[in-house]
Amino acid sequence: MTIFVDMDEVIADTYGAHIAWYNRHFGGNLTREQCLGGEVWQQVPEHRSHLWNHYFQPGFFRTLDPIAGSVEVMRELAAKHEVFVASAAMQFPNSLVEKHQWLDEHMPFIHWRNRILLGDKHILRGDVLIDDRLHNLETFQGRGILFTSPHNINAQGFERASDWEEVAAKLL
Amino acid sequence: MTIFVDMDEVIADTYGAHIAWYNRHFGGNLTREQCLGGEVWQQVPEHRSHLWNHYFQPGFFRTLDPIAGSVEVMRELAAKHEVFVASAAMQFPNSLVEKHQWLDEHMPFIHWRNRILLGDKHILRGDVLIDDRLHNLETFQGRGILFTSPHNINAQGFERASDWEEVAAKLL
Repeated sequence: MTIFVDMDEVIADTYGAHIAWYNRHFGGNLTREQCLGGEVWQQVPEHRSHLWNHYFQPGFFRTLDPIAGSVEVMRELAAKHEVFVASAAMQFPNSLVEKHQWLDEHMPFIHWRNRILLGDKHILRGDVLIDDRLHNLETFQGRGILFTSPHNINAQGFERASDWEEVAAKLL
Repeated sequence: MTIFVDMDEVIADTYGAHIAWYNRHFGGNLTREQCLGGEVWQQVPEHRSHLWNHYFQPGFFRTLDPIAGSVEVMRELAAKHEVFVASAAMQFPNSLVEKHQWLDEHMPFIHWRNRILLGDKHILRGDVLIDDRLHNLETFQGRGILFTSPHNINAQGFERASDWEEVAAKLL
């Protein structure tokens, strides 16, 4: 079975890093709970551009924390299935090598042959896509699994995994 | 129609850069004609590793020349079809951002959404793949077009394009 796994907000905690970055730079007090149902930038008073420039800062993607349980379950998945990490990275040129290095550090069992950095995921051919973004799942022709992230908690009509334990129960 | 186009030796002259690199560093006199039917490293007396380390040098992929006719035909193809550049880049971490920048310079009409850096191409879903490597064409499920490169001139059994004029005749 060929399984594609998204990176940001599925194996790497981008959402948490956005909140931490905001609180650090604006002396804010934002929590994950406050952001439920939307994007981080929708919860803060500053103009979006202030918040989103940090995406382009060297190091942002390199230092993300792994999502809880992702390393262990990904290791088991990769031993059983053909697992690819597929990340929409092209918008952020800095992120390309940083995402590669992040995988080297946290998931070295994902061989470079099984890493995909791209812009748009509808050209992927395989059985399963685990992703937090609805538009990626909507254009995928296999089984799409929506990985729960604060911004998608109200989305309906998708098979959902709330955490990596649920991914393991479905695919191991 | 969705068309995937390989980068090295299809739109970017990697082969020519290998030869130039070899001649510059070893005072060699190698020509493209001498290499016909094989890889550059097969034509030189030095141990392979000496030749291949330059792949990892910053700048190597950034400074490749476009293959003759590729810029013009790619521009027309992209206006008519859904064209993606799909490059096996993961083995060379330096190359990730350099390939992105190369496209920014030479083919800015290929939007970042249409750029794919990956390890293995068998997970691509689309209609056409233009590539110089047999193994990529063998696992692709659509129409594969072998783009002629010195190393593949003896390969049989593939639809072939000898240059970008022939690609234009087939797909425009």
